[in-house]
Amino acid sequence: MTKDHVGLVQVLTGNGRGKTTAALGTVLRAVGQGLHVHIIHFMKGTYPYGEQKALALLPNVTVSRFGKLDFVDPRNIKEEEREEARKALAASKEAIHSGAYDMVVLDEINIASAWGLIPVEEVLELIKTKPEGVELILTGRYADRRLIEAADLVTEMVEIKHPYQKGIKARKGFEY
Amino acid sequence: MTKDHVGLVQVLTGNGRGKTTAALGTVLRAVGQGLHVHIIHFMKGTYPYGEQKALALLPNVTVSRFGKLDFVDPRNIKEEEREEARKALAASKEAIHSGAYDMVVLDEINIASAWGLIPVEEVLELIKTKPEGVELILTGRYADRRLIEAADLVTEMVEIKHPYQKGIKARKGFEY
Repeated sequence: MTKDHVGLVQVLTGNGRGKTTAALGTVLRAVGQGLHVHIIHFMKGTYPYGEQKALALLPNVTVSRFGKLDFVDPRNIKEEEREEARKALAASKEAIHSGAYDMVVLDEINIASAWGLIPVEEVLELIKTKPEGVELILTGRYADRRLIEAADLVTEMVEIKHPYQKGIKARKGFEY
Repeated sequence: MTKDHVGLVQVLTGNGRGKTTAALGTVLRAVGQGLHVHIIHFMKGTYPYGEQKALALLPNVTVSRFGKLDFVDPRNIKEEEREEARKALAASKEAIHSGAYDMVVLDEINIASAWGLIPVEEVLELIKTKPEGVELILTGRYADRRLIEAADLVTEMVEIKHPYQKGIKARKGFEY
């Protein structure tokens, strides 16, 4: 890994598509430049399998997946779901401080903290204590105002038009 | 390539980061599912080299690059810049109708048409005549209203906060 740069904190949020996808594109660019990346998925139910297969083709990318396969119901969060999110948080802390990665992607951490699976304070702590050289990317809708304040680069993906309005179903290789 | 799906027309636009990057993430997902992709860059000056190196690691991805290496000045467009954009358009038409690709990414075509390097009408024609199975992804800011109307899925990347405000320079593996 290289140490000759300042790692930023990026937040990708909003109701539109392209949050995780943009993070993946950023990973592709980073790997192309020889950087080492760790991707931690907080809610693997939302994780498309096509990406998984393609990431396996890339060097220097580590992927850790937490959470249940089913989608979390925010009105009825189960203890095992909190437990998985806490494990993901611990893995994030470890990856960030390991010295082995130039970039750490915390996929869906925004929504995990917005829904109370993990405290926002602990996510802020991750940001505050990160080593200077590590780029941190936080994805997911409902990013807390405090996360946006703590970040250097914030992009909101806004849905202008969506094909589900046309009744088209999710397709292999495109949505998953 | 597979033919068992309806290809959509996606537009990624807006002033925020993540348009090309999200397209790249979508390519990664598609390749992971065994799909064949052609990426056509209309303005290669904006194309980060990290992506280029990483894309070379992936199977079934063809990349064509057009345009000058320098950034185009919209107030002073040169004939050779128009010529490059026309070549990119011809290559797009060929890729879309070749039967060899499930997904064709037209990178920065929105801005190329917004700046008059190619007529919007010809971009609309590409969309209208595309074979059903081909997914078409158009990126770039200033997407014409008619392109947005013709698309199935439109996402706007909105810049909420940008590190250049903090005076941080572009960094290898991150911005390029």
